[in-house]
Amino acid sequence: MEINRRNLIKGSAAAIAVGGLTLSSSAREQNPLPSWNDGPAKQAILDFVKTTTDKSNAKFVPPEDRIAEFDQDGTLWVEHPLYTQVVYCFDRVGALVQAKPELKDVEPYKTVLSGDREAIAKLPTRELFEIVIATESGMTVEDYSVDVKKWLAAARDPRWKRPYTDLTYLPMQEVLKYLRANGYKTFIATGGTAGFVREYSNQVYGIPPEHVAGTSQAFEYGNGKDGQPTLTREPKLVLDNLGAGKIENFWLMYGRRPNAAFGNSSADDQQILEYTKAGAGARLSVVVMHDDATREYAYGPAQGLPDTTIGTLSQAMYDEAKTQGWIVISMKNDWKRIFAWES
Amino acid sequence: MEINRRNLIKGSAAAIAVGGLTLSSSAREQNPLPSWNDGPAKQAILDFVKTTTDKSNAKFVPPEDRIAEFDQDGTLWVEHPLYTQVVYCFDRVGALVQAKPELKDVEPYKTVLSGDREAIAKLPTRELFEIVIATESGMTVEDYSVDVKKWLAAARDPRWKRPYTDLTYLPMQEVLKYLRANGYKTFIATGGTAGFVREYSNQVYGIPPEHVAGTSQAFEYGNGKDGQPTLTREPKLVLDNLGAGKIENFWLMYGRRPNAAFGNSSADDQQILEYTKAGAGARLSVVVMHDDATREYAYGPAQGLPDTTIGTLSQAMYDEAKTQGWIVISMKNDWKRIFAWES
Repeated sequence: MEINRRNLIKGSAAAIAVGGLTLSSSAREQNPLPSWNDGPAKQAILDFVKTTTDKSNAKFVPPEDRIAEFDQDGTLWVEHPLYTQVVYCFDRVGALVQAKPELKDVEPYKTVLSGDREAIAKLPTRELFEIVIATESGMTVEDYSVDVKKWLAAARDPRWKRPYTDLTYLPMQEVLKYLRANGYKTFIATGGTAGFVREYSNQVYGIPPEHVAGTSQAFEYGNGKDGQPTLTREPKLVLDNLGAGKIENFWLMYGRRPNAAFGNSSADDQQILEYTKAGAGARLSVVVMHDDATREYAYGPAQGLPDTTIGTLSQAMYDEAKTQGWIVISMKNDWKRIFAWES
Repeated sequence: MEINRRNLIKGSAAAIAVGGLTLSSSAREQNPLPSWNDGPAKQAILDFVKTTTDKSNAKFVPPEDRIAEFDQDGTLWVEHPLYTQVVYCFDRVGALVQAKPELKDVEPYKTVLSGDREAIAKLPTRELFEIVIATESGMTVEDYSVDVKKWLAAARDPRWKRPYTDLTYLPMQEVLKYLRANGYKTFIATGGTAGFVREYSNQVYGIPPEHVAGTSQAFEYGNGKDGQPTLTREPKLVLDNLGAGKIENFWLMYGRRPNAAFGNSSADDQQILEYTKAGAGARLSVVVMHDDATREYAYGPAQGLPDTTIGTLSQAMYDEAKTQGWIVISMKNDWKRIFAWES
């Protein structure tokens, strides 16, 4: 009897909880993407979720197989005028050159130290990689974590004067939550290093570190000064996520073909979007097009910038998107709001 | 009013559900590890979970940070007389040699083709790796998946005449479930290739493919005969999980130090157990000792076998376990039952 009474009390509490849940679920279900304007991009996302979560649909996907992949730079947050991680690494170049003075007359360090923003912005991605690997090596994983967190807390984006972690796109945050609310596991696959993004992925995107894939250097097991075991970041590239590397390494790490993939750049999103879309059943490949010079930035095919520029969407990739039935998001037209802190 | 009535009905249903849950939770809570004999190993696991999930304890671990890692061969399932994956690869050596006849006079293929079980069992792990990589290359990831599933459905262990997937240890299955019921995310980190284990990890262990780390070869993006994008398994080793590689690559893939780690072999578990135990707060490092020649196998220090034998627990690692406060499971004394299908 005691057990039964306790259950009844628990039942009442559950009824209240269930009531609250019902109401808020309904509200979310009515408009799960409030920062989106109605249009084909929003509709495609809604249709994809409806199709793949409806048991009576032939394209139903069981919950354990629902995988959604997101590029970070230019897809989940601002990447212009420079990738945030590269800004972090540039701030470490001084210390690196102090330790190795011979680097100061060598490219790409020479250009970085010159402070010439225009020249810096033109550095090829491979040379940026070299700086990232060089500046993010030699310390334990714990020391690296402390340093990144400290930098993120202090650094400010030059245009909006805000922490970089404020520069995530609200409409994409809504997509992340909407997909998760519908049983999807959300992953980040970045061209940058996984370690950097893992420092804030859970807090900023609700994505745990283990679901962040990226370019990765080697880690070396050893013993610290106190004799305790350590892992040290080594200047050796193991996983290179540029180009086709992003989908090759996504498979290596997770053994999954995404059902949905979101990207923006010809440098590292084209092949994972192709591979996602080519899978059986309902598939969603989405490209974020940066065409809003007023509220964010405009770059890519409309501006005729070369493919090597940071985050560029090439004309070829844009054409492929149209031919293959990918969804192209116009930031200008599809997004009602871009940042959560905008009025 | 309509909404309120619906909520009340839902409330009643919830009460029944909550009632059922309460009872079965209680039953599980009373004895979450029924296949274990009472003793220090069982107690250590129970204490670890109690400590890390109790909010009032200084060693409480927030749910999002609860990470438990498990070796597979010899820890979650039988690894003797040969690793299951190696048996699979041996079954593919014939086809490989047919395609490349020059291999048949070259070691280690010569020994494998001889059928001399004793000589085969003595092949060094690195040479086994060579066979694994060679036989698991050249096909698309889909073709590989089909082949592994087909083989697993047909193959039988020579001693018990059962599918290999029946040879998982019931007490460890209980630990997996117990940890997950307490908010832990469970991962496999195997010395074998991740791809093989991912074919059955969800079904057999309740661990999704993306939480299986392992030795890994490269994948190459390309186009199949029909022009559709493909990923092909390449004969190039990218992640080597032997020795310290297991923890180095675990960090590379997930950016996490486990709170709990379970292993059995000096070949690939020692360093991840060290690194786990050296972390702050409550940490659990567990070694499975194979000392039951009747119900399973007996090998390792008690038998004085050399360290290069499959899955051996060296005397040095056994001593380290005792010195560092790791838990050593005696299969003979700590496990009431070993397999789920035993009467």
